[in-house]
Order: sequence, then C-alpha cells, then structure tokens
Amino acid sequence: DPTLKVFTLNSNKELSKEIAQHIGIELGESSVTKFSDGEIQINIEESIRGCEVYVIQSTSDPVNQHLMELLIMIDALKRASAKTINVVMPYYGYARQDRKARAREPITAKLVANLLETAGATRVIAIDLHAPQIQGFFDIPVDQLLGVPILANYFDNKELDDIVIVSPDHGGVTRARKMADRLKAPIAIIDKRRPRPNVSEVMNIVGNIEGKTAILIDDIIDTAGTITLAANALVENGAKEVYACCTHPVLSGPAMDRIQNSQIKELVVTNTIVLPEEKKIDKVTQLSVAPLLGEAIIRVHEQLSVSKLFD
Amino acid sequence: DPTLKVFTLNSNKELSKEIAQHIGIELGESSVTKFSDGEIQINIEESIRGCEVYVIQSTSDPVNQHLMELLIMIDALKRASAKTINVVMPYYGYARQDRKARAREPITAKLVANLLETAGATRVIAIDLHAPQIQGFFDIPVDQLLGVPILANYFDNKELDDIVIVSPDHGGVTRARKMADRLKAPIAIIDKRRPRPNVSEVMNIVGNIEGKTAILIDDIIDTAGTITLAANALVENGAKEVYACCTHPVLSGPAMDRIQNSQIKELVVTNTIVLPEEKKIDKVTQLSVAPLLGEAIIRVHEQLSVSKLFD
Ligand SMILES: Nc1ncnc2c1ncn2[C@@H]1O[C@H](COP(=O)(O)O)[C@@H](O)[C@H]1O
Ligand SMILES: Nc1ncnc2c1ncn2[C@@H]1O[C@H](COP(=O)(O)O)[C@@H](O)[C@H]1O
Repeated sequence: DPTLKVFTLNSNKELSKEIAQHIGIELGESSVTKFSDGEIQINIEESIRGCEVYVIQSTSDPVNQHLMELLIMIDALKRASAKTINVVMPYYGYARQDRKARAREPITAKLVANLLETAGATRVIAIDLHAPQIQGFFDIPVDQLLGVPILANYFDNKELDDIVIVSPDHGGVTRARKMADRLKAPIAIIDKRRPRPNVSEVMNIVGNIEGKTAILIDDIIDTAGTITLAANALVENGAKEVYACCTHPVLSGPAMDRIQNSQIKELVVTNTIVLPEEKKIDKVTQLSVAPLLGEAIIRVHEQLSVSKLFD
Repeated sequence: DPTLKVFTLNSNKELSKEIAQHIGIELGESSVTKFSDGEIQINIEESIRGCEVYVIQSTSDPVNQHLMELLIMIDALKRASAKTINVVMPYYGYARQDRKARAREPITAKLVANLLETAGATRVIAIDLHAPQIQGFFDIPVDQLLGVPILANYFDNKELDDIVIVSPDHGGVTRARKMADRLKAPIAIIDKRRPRPNVSEVMNIVGNIEGKTAILIDDIIDTAGTITLAANALVENGAKEVYACCTHPVLSGPAMDRIQNSQIKELVVTNTIVLPEEKKIDKVTQLSVAPLLGEAIIRVHEQLSVSKLFD
C-alpha cells in the first residue's frame, strides 16, 4: 500500500490538523510563505516519493492567493514524484461563475478545473459544489460530500418543535428537500418575483409557515442579502422563530451587520471557510467538517466508495 | 485581415493606453473588478469575434491577483470566439522560480506557462525573461523583446565620459556585454565569493573601474541588496560615480531605503512594472517600453519578425 500523507496550505490550518487527528497521522512537513515581492514560496520538507498525497485547501478569500498556493503545491508534489495528488477543497471558490449568464463572460469554475488538472491533480474531494455540474468540468474523479447531514444532525439534537425547512430561492429547493427528509419536516419556498419591470420584488411564501419554527438553508451565504430578507419575510408572515444554516460561510461585505440586525435567531455554518474573530458573534454556530473529510480520505485511500458516508 | 484589438487589465493601465496610442487605436472596452468576496469579475463590453486580440498585463505584485485576472480574461476571450489571443507580459512574474534549486521545489515559471496555454493563450510577447529558457516552457510562439536598447539609448544621450558597464554578478555578464557593445564601452564584473564557509563574502572587482563612470545593469532589481552593495564597492574601489539600471523595477521590501542611502547617483528603470508614488524619488528615472511593445504588436499583426526591433 502506498503511504498516506496529508499536507495543509494556508486557508484552513486548524481544519487540516483536525483531519489529520481524525485519521491518526501527523500533517506533512512543509512551509508555504511569500518572498519579499509577494510571490509564493513553497518548500516540502519530507520525501513524498511514491506516496498518496492529500492537500487540503479552500479557495476562499483571498481566493487568488489560495488558488495559486494550491497550484504551486501540486506542481511541487508532482515533481517530487507523488504517486497520486488528491486535492481536498472544502470550499471551491469561483463556483458561482459556472456558466455564461451574459455574452462574453468567462466560465471561471471550469477554468479552475482545467488549472488544477494542468498542475497535476489526480482527484478532487469537495463539499457542496455550488452546481453539481462542476464535477463534469473535470476529467479526473471528483468526490462530492454533502453538508446537509452535518447541519441536519445539529438541528435534530436541538429537538425543536413544529419545524419547516425553507429554501430562500427556487434554486435551493432540492437541498431543502434533503434536509427536510432527514428532519421529517415539511418544506416551504421563498418565491421572489418582480410583478412588472422597475417595480420592487415581492416576497411570496409558498407553503405553510404560520406559527412554525423555520429553518432556512442555503449552500453559500455571501453578502447575506437573500437570507436576511427571507428571514424577515418569514417572521412578518407569522413564523414563530427563524434559524438559518449553510455549508459555506463566505460572509463578505455587509453580511455580518445584516445578520446581526435580522430576525435570524441563530446562524449555523460549517468550517469549510475559516471565520475570523470578528465574525464569531453569539448568533453564529460553527460545526466541523473534519470527521467527514477525515472519513472520506480514509475511504478513498482504502479504495472504498465515499457515498456510504451519507447514510 | 482580422481586426486588431488591444485590451488592458489592472496591472499597467497607463502603459496600455500609451501602447494603444502608439498603434493608433482605442483600447477595447472591458471592466475588470471584484465581487464582494474578492473573486474577479470580468466583462468584455464589445464583440471580439474573429479578432486578433492582444491583452496587456504584467504579473507584478500582487502577482496572484494579476495572474488570475489574465487567466480569466483569456478564458472569456476564448469563449467569445477571438481568433488569436496574444498575451503581452511586460513583466513575467515567478520567472526566478525557473528550476529546482533544491529538492521538492516547484518550477513555478513553467507552471505559469502551462496555465496560460491551458486558459487559451496562442502567443506570448514578453520583455527580458529572467532566463531565456522560459521561452522553451511554452509550446506556443514566444517573442522576447529586450530592455537593453532603451536603457543604452538613455545613457547614450547623457554623453557621459569614460564609462564602464558593470554586471553585479556572474549571471548578468551577457547582458552587460550587450549594453557595452551599444555604448562602445568596456565591461567589469562584481565577483562575489566566500573565501571559506561561514566567512562573509568578499566583493572583488574584475576589470578596470578606477576613475570611471560605472553603469551597473541587471534585469530585475527586487530588494536591491545586490545592486547597492555593488555600487558601494565600486565607489570604494575608485569609481568616479555610479549609475544603475534595470528593466524590471520590482523594488520590494527594503529596496527604496537601500537605494536612497547608497552610492547610486541615478537609477534608470522602465515601466514594465508601475511605480507607486512613494517609489518615484528624485534618483529614479523611468523610461517607457510603450513604443517597443506598440511596434512589436504592429509587426506581429503584420506577420513580420520582431527581431528587427533590435537593430
Ligand atoms: N463571487 C461572486 N459574488 C457574487 N456573484 C457572483 C460571484 N461569482 C459569480 N457571481 C454571479 O452569480 C451568478 C450565479 O449565481 P447563482 O445564480 O446563485 O448560481 C452569476 O450571474 C454570476 O455572474
Ligand atoms: N520572488 C522571489 N524573490 C526572491 N527570490 C526568489 C524569488 N523567486 C525565486 N527566488 C529564488 O531565487 C533563486 C533564483 O534566482 P537567480 O539565481 O537570480 O535566477 C532561486 O533560488 C529561487 O528560489
């Protein structure tokens, strides 16, 4: 059996340590720093010849820095004769640029897939790709893990009464359905529409939320506009209280203010993206994906299917 | 003939305008901004279908940001049916990571070449690649232009007496020789060596500099350690005065302090890398590569050799 080695880069060092602990190994020795002019300098400080290597990196903000660290690390591993180079991306940046919505747009999610393969990645393990089609952007195996079981488990343990799972938009209904199945709850949908051009949007709610505890679910919360408007609309329309959850807490720009000032009672997220201290407010609960990723690495290393992880 | 279009990204907007002026066209309409979470957003705002497109971008600090802008722009141009995508890189970042100097190092200069080709570049035009071997990292045509004629021309117009061209290290002697040929001057070399391990370096000067005006030349000045030590050694050893010049003014970290406090009378650089206001000190003269790049673009577009530009 080839030796299993796990390396971290700079986006998620704590998560990487937790993953290594879960697997029961030490993280590989490497240093990832910058030269005086901002160029990335990588030194792998132990032999990895013939090894099965896993590199953990989210392409979260600063996304271009994190992506280049990952590509340069893959290049170094390839030249140092790694047997396989498995890229573990808890958060896959640029995933929302997955199609030409307008003329002459790039499809950066596909570009990133090509760049990873060109550098020498032989497999990708990711969590909740914004569009499942991104798996098809690669010509190497992609394992997609799901955040829903972790989030559902948390709410299950809270033993809330009379809950309803709410999708904040049309695109997220499948995800809400998966969550609802696990919690044996009904679903509702925020059905935004613009009655006429240049008239502001109406927040219509499809499904019964009256007097219920609503749990909003999304994959990414970025500026938090959608989710906080949805939470407020739910309370205005008679929901008893509103929780929100997502896998990837991007939380950029006005997000924290909006969440703080919204009707959201608690926001539950995972640690696919690190939360800096100023985002660790009382309302926010962060759950770890380390056991999920640790199990996935063990299963891939043992040549077992990772889909079993969702049972 | 396919239409010629020139687009700029964010590293060198002024240079791009100058190049477009030299060619006698307007820059293509595009916007290159950031989403709230730091991801790059590119919109090309005019049709480029069937056109011969030139994109101008130096991968200078912030190098990863500038490189990703370039890759995403190439992707967008490719998907918008450009006939050719010609990447004009006045400064090619990561060029110093061009070989494995130690075990398990990446070769990032080669990785960058692969990334540019993967994105869809069909030709590269660059100035003074740190190693000419970088041309061989590409499987597409690469035109390398030289900074020496621009620098030599400036010193020629100064009509300095009794000059000697000095290479600050062994690696730069060929460049110094080219400069010396143009100025009909002799050369000298700073011959640093360490007499024994753990003993500090000795600055030995090979060649006659006594009473002469020395002109130090390098391709890149980064932290300016080498060049300022060389300048001081030249004065200590009897040079009358010392000028320095380079193509790429990286000037990171302690560079400006070192230059200000050194024996360098004037530092002559080009605008392959933009100088922020705080680096535009009296000692620094910046020359434009716009006419050189403008001519190169015209010649490539007319399917003529660019090597004629060096006569
Ligand atoms: N980082 C980003 N922040 C905000 N919007 C983005 C980002 N990346 C892509 N988009 C846009 O988001 C839209 C796709 O989002 P979605 O409809 O949720 O899949 C596209 O119109 C993209 O142009
Ligand atoms: N951005 C950088 N700043 C400083 N040193 C670098 C940089 N990139 C690469 N290097 C190192 O510079 C050396 C090559 O420089 P040179 O000998 O001038 O070609 C190699 O040992 C590299 O590790």
